[in-house]
Amino acid sequence: MLSIAKPTLLLDEQKCRENIQRMAEKADRNNVFFRPHFKTHQSLEVGRWFKEYGVTAITVSSIEMANYFAQEWDDITVAFPVNLLETSVINNLASRVKLNLLLESKTAAAFLAKELTVDVGCFLKIDTGYHRTGLDPENIAEIQEIADVFANSKYMNFKGFLTHSGHTYTAKDTGSIRQIHERSTEVLLHLKALYIDRFPELIISIGDTPGCSIAEDFAGIDEIRPGNFVFYDLMQTQLGSNSIGDIAVCMACPVVAVHPKRNELIIYGGAVHFSKEFLEVTDGERNYGQVAKPGNPGWGEPVPGMQLVKLSQEHGTISVPESLRDAYLPGDIIHILPVHSCLTANLQPSFTLLSGNEIPKF
Amino acid sequence: MLSIAKPTLLLDEQKCRENIQRMAEKADRNNVFFRPHFKTHQSLEVGRWFKEYGVTAITVSSIEMANYFAQEWDDITVAFPVNLLETSVINNLASRVKLNLLLESKTAAAFLAKELTVDVGCFLKIDTGYHRTGLDPENIAEIQEIADVFANSKYMNFKGFLTHSGHTYTAKDTGSIRQIHERSTEVLLHLKALYIDRFPELIISIGDTPGCSIAEDFAGIDEIRPGNFVFYDLMQTQLGSNSIGDIAVCMACPVVAVHPKRNELIIYGGAVHFSKEFLEVTDGERNYGQVAKPGNPGWGEPVPGMQLVKLSQEHGTISVPESLRDAYLPGDIIHILPVHSCLTANLQPSFTLLSGNEIPKF
Repeated sequence: MLSIAKPTLLLDEQKCRENIQRMAEKADRNNVFFRPHFKTHQSLEVGRWFKEYGVTAITVSSIEMANYFAQEWDDITVAFPVNLLETSVINNLASRVKLNLLLESKTAAAFLAKELTVDVGCFLKIDTGYHRTGLDPENIAEIQEIADVFANSKYMNFKGFLTHSGHTYTAKDTGSIRQIHERSTEVLLHLKALYIDRFPELIISIGDTPGCSIAEDFAGIDEIRPGNFVFYDLMQTQLGSNSIGDIAVCMACPVVAVHPKRNELIIYGGAVHFSKEFLEVTDGERNYGQVAKPGNPGWGEPVPGMQLVKLSQEHGTISVPESLRDAYLPGDIIHILPVHSCLTANLQPSFTLLSGNEIPKF
Repeated sequence: MLSIAKPTLLLDEQKCRENIQRMAEKADRNNVFFRPHFKTHQSLEVGRWFKEYGVTAITVSSIEMANYFAQEWDDITVAFPVNLLETSVINNLASRVKLNLLLESKTAAAFLAKELTVDVGCFLKIDTGYHRTGLDPENIAEIQEIADVFANSKYMNFKGFLTHSGHTYTAKDTGSIRQIHERSTEVLLHLKALYIDRFPELIISIGDTPGCSIAEDFAGIDEIRPGNFVFYDLMQTQLGSNSIGDIAVCMACPVVAVHPKRNELIIYGGAVHFSKEFLEVTDGERNYGQVAKPGNPGWGEPVPGMQLVKLSQEHGTISVPESLRDAYLPGDIIHILPVHSCLTANLQPSFTLLSGNEIPKF
């Protein structure tokens, strides 16, 4: 059914739909608005699947990506600190869809207040502990100044407080992930309480896949924006967000050389296909991907001891357990679960469904 | 002159041409055939610059890339173990251009002997110590069997012995790089001597940028295939292949947030723009890119203490020295020299010349 001749990103539609449905139902059950992040799949077609589960609004990570999805979506949050060099594109886009932006400084707020010519929703991006970016929640002086800019602006509508608790990605266990999730919620709820009288429509929005997958308590949260859950990957599996069977994408790569003497295979599949994201293996070695058994169609269980251990531009080196050292030949296809599905999908021009149909992406 | 609103890969044509000219002259001086690898730039336009320095034949890393360059080049080596699943594309391509393939097993040779319908040149890929892939040069039995397949095949023309001495990338100093270069040459010359009577046209071909940049002794070498030298990057600079002023590409990225309290900036520029390749910094920290001063046009000297220290999908975190902590604002442009120009260029849809002109790529 599937005819694979070069590195190909397979997408298991059923697993993907199950991931979407599970998160949509969780949002429903907890009475939170579900605004999934589309930066992982970057595909109009996968986006259409979300519509079947009641999704009406999305999150993206760039204005370019917002423009792509604006073909079929009319309510889009760009979850990235607003880029002041793109105000003309922003004005154009915001004249066509409901657009929400993220701000985190009075400099940006003041600049934007002068440049905007159409309505946009404005979230204050809050740093709840990840320390990548966002406003310090203790910095009430600056939060106040920005809120004043919003209040005095013709086009800026203060939407609420938003965070990405990316520190869940370095958490040691699911208990710590729950704690981070709860702490982030508390911080945002505290800010909301300070401003809700002045801005009665304010919401709080949280966004990471580990927190949204693992936590069960969403009390007080108005909106969630997870993205990676649509496919999951090895990193999420290691964090406890999903079981390995939930991973909905897999690279299929041709074997081009075998090295039984050193228990290795070489595949056509390198850094330009997988990205150089890796998991640290306990003994200092790196895991760039986990080999799975071939399925019919698709792929099956992981093969213990078979990992992608080295990557150059187009070559990948796969470790092979002693018992399988003579089991592979050039021309075979190897299935590899990605470490970070967002980056792997970003490198591919399209997805191949298990039916063999190819679906385009951004 | 340059109007930059989002992450943009700048290409300094003059530096690039100087890099090309330097390597072309070195090849000339040493009487070796220069067959540059085009996987770094992946651009027909940059390829045309090579023609001005006398280049007539090229190297690429996939059949797809060969097809792209076949629009303007008629002598192409695909320096990657032949993918047996692409024989129909290979036959088609080889009917239009002089195509050379790499083989490293009798399995692949026997399979290809049956499938080919047009002439191809065949190199034996030899592992001279990198241990990624290639035939063990001591495995004379298999080399002999493959040579016999070539001799008996209607379409396979034994071209010679080829290696990529990628172990130069982990060498500690330029002396070690020279040693690897010399040792690889010796290994290939030994094999050539064994077969030259039977196949009088045999050549030996070597390929890494550190070796080709640093070594001065090319005695006995027939062909060189470096690629990265066209742009160079931080990794090559660290190895001693070039000076930092020779780097011909630089990412220009908008600042989207400033964090003077922790001496950091956030740029619009992440793993999907740079790749996750990094240099290990002595204290265990990672360097994903070196900030350079803005030039007019282009970029200037590196700024000590300003590095890209963290990357997520679209966010980059830049460390800022104490003295510059208040020097940046959202909307500024930061110039960053890439760690690995091949992977960074691969992620970009085009190059922007310092004139502002955009040139397309594969």
